[in-house]
Amino acid sequence: MRQKGAKIYEGKAKILYDVVGQKEEVWVEFKDSLTAFNAQKVSSFSGKGELNAKITSNIYKRLMDAGIETHWIEDVDSKNMICRKVRIAPLEVVVRNRLAGSTAKRLGFQEGHKISAPLVEFYYKDDGLGDPFVSDDQALLLGAVQNASELEQLKKQARAIDEVLIRIFAEAGLELIDFKLEFGRDGEGKFILADEISPDTCRLWDQKTGEKLDKDRFRRDLGNVAEAYHEVWERLSGERG
Amino acid sequence: MRQKGAKIYEGKAKILYDVVGQKEEVWVEFKDSLTAFNAQKVSSFSGKGELNAKITSNIYKRLMDAGIETHWIEDVDSKNMICRKVRIAPLEVVVRNRLAGSTAKRLGFQEGHKISAPLVEFYYKDDGLGDPFVSDDQALLLGAVQNASELEQLKKQARAIDEVLIRIFAEAGLELIDFKLEFGRDGEGKFILADEISPDTCRLWDQKTGEKLDKDRFRRDLGNVAEAYHEVWERLSGERG
Repeated sequence: MRQKGAKIYEGKAKILYDVVGQKEEVWVEFKDSLTAFNAQKVSSFSGKGELNAKITSNIYKRLMDAGIETHWIEDVDSKNMICRKVRIAPLEVVVRNRLAGSTAKRLGFQEGHKISAPLVEFYYKDDGLGDPFVSDDQALLLGAVQNASELEQLKKQARAIDEVLIRIFAEAGLELIDFKLEFGRDGEGKFILADEISPDTCRLWDQKTGEKLDKDRFRRDLGNVAEAYHEVWERLSGERG
Repeated sequence: MRQKGAKIYEGKAKILYDVVGQKEEVWVEFKDSLTAFNAQKVSSFSGKGELNAKITSNIYKRLMDAGIETHWIEDVDSKNMICRKVRIAPLEVVVRNRLAGSTAKRLGFQEGHKISAPLVEFYYKDDGLGDPFVSDDQALLLGAVQNASELEQLKKQARAIDEVLIRIFAEAGLELIDFKLEFGRDGEGKFILADEISPDTCRLWDQKTGEKLDKDRFRRDLGNVAEAYHEVWERLSGERG
């Protein structure tokens, strides 16, 4: 049984702690808070941390079954998990299967515009700058990774994860519109999937009705935010959330 | 002697006309108008069209001497020129030798931050969208060019042009901070440098004092706009403008 150590870092959705006696591990606690637009919009609901932890853990296990490495080691309980300690690369990797949200608007497409092949984008992780969208060359200029081949590697890993996630969510009656990934480097410098995969980080639409079952319900004040997160968990697990 | 035909298109800084009896040519007239921020800020000064035409023509000739193809054929007079008719690709190609303006701010750098290698960026030409910055993958998604190798070709041409322009402006005591290029396809689909090269499309700083001698004087209300354009022409040509 692992023991929680000192707090390392508190983010918008999770708190990271040391694991006593385990230098290569990190204790991840999922929070109930809900933020959007670089934390300019803030809320929370009871049980949200637990739902996102359970969803993330469920999906990580299935990704690992499909041969994709993640930082997950084991669950402590329903809102805490033990993960490998990695150095998070300062890039958010976004994969789009359809265009939605601000990107659809910025590029002149209708919400939900289908694209022929997944689009992978990079955003430079810097709260002070509002996580700006960057081209590959800008990501290199910013030193976010070491070289162009690392960027290609991240794109390749993101596309492989997209393929598996599309299938996982489709089995739950959900269409994966887009999602954000974060990668960390292990001891050898190799990129491993980290952070979380949840309705906070994915756009998920009901396959039949197109109903939004993700953080857009909060961003856009659509109501029934908690219900949507519960719905995603229930569909993925077959359990009542 | 060419004869001006019907108007084809009026842009923010130039008017294009047919050339009577010459289907592969276009008559380009430079306007006195001055616009910034997607034409939300508008002004003009007498002689501006002439200065930009003379500066563009002067630079095009030197680029061609250095082996770089441009659409320029010949000057009609000091504010009109004959160019090859090309199909302009819907991408603005921006090259940065230092970071300045909105990009410096967006990426968290000081105005004038030196970079170790030139940065090439693409902006999708669409006035309604405000010419959004796009990654290579987004440019491909938007169909701005046919494939990734065409994007690489544009980057390569832009870097080659940068090398020559740095030298041309340095000989005039000016440091080339950044600039915007547009390329058009000729009959065989090959990209040729088009549009203009002027203080409207380049950031030019005095090598010694750092004084801005370009459209930033207008964008930022620094005053002496006309004087700066005259100064650039005088330094390039050795003539009084």
